[in-house]
Amino acid sequence: MDLKRIAKDTTKTLTSYLTYQAVRVVISQLDETEPKRAYWLHQFSAREKIQDGEAYLQALFRERQDLAFRILTVREHLANEIAEALPEMLRSTIQQANMDQRRQQLERITQLELTAPSSSIDSL
Amino acid sequence: MDLKRIAKDTTKTLTSYLTYQAVRVVISQLDETEPKRAYWLHQFSAREKIQDGEAYLQALFRERQDLAFRILTVREHLANEIAEALPEMLRSTIQQANMDQRRQQLERITQLELTAPSSSIDSL
Repeated sequence: MDLKRIAKDTTKTLTSYLTYQAVRVVISQLDETEPKRAYWLHQFSAREKIQDGEAYLQALFRERQDLAFRILTVREHLANEIAEALPEMLRSTIQQANMDQRRQQLERITQLELTAPSSSIDSL
Repeated sequence: MDLKRIAKDTTKTLTSYLTYQAVRVVISQLDETEPKRAYWLHQFSAREKIQDGEAYLQALFRERQDLAFRILTVREHLANEIAEALPEMLRSTIQQANMDQRRQQLERITQLELTAPSSSIDSL
């Protein structure tokens, strides 16, 4: 288990995800002031793969550098604002999700035993 | 800019991503001891959408509950191991990526001015 590589890959995924969220923020800001540019960015983002945040930004810089610069600023702001909360949120979300999965599985097994009581008695 | 919602969505994405990483860890562990089960999990993971980690796990619980339980344990372990490092890694990765994007754009503009010096002088 290469934890260093996993942490690095996770950070890369996070960076791309926050780029996507920054694009959404900029589109919604433009929607209120410059709906035409909001529409343009929306169309551009549907065309260019946003899964790879850096490639997306490079493509955007070639077409509308002001929007690209704005997205850089917003994603850095988002990272600074939410970074500190992430460890605790991540740990508690995974603990809760694991608990839910275990509970659901227990319920499923119980249900199976109720609907097939003889086989359950056989296995005792 | 709804930071609370963005932090929550980001945590959900992170949880799914760590589920995917946990599946990779379990496959690589099985590869060494039980290659047939490793192959089975590999095939299963190619078939079931792993983008939604919880739905993937629910499907796996229905087929091989021991593997599903193992993935729950591994993803919780991964979260506990890397969570604390994430804020600093995220901030520095985004800062570095933004610096790279700005540098590339500066180089592109300089290049454009070098290849079209007259228009650049015209615009002065």
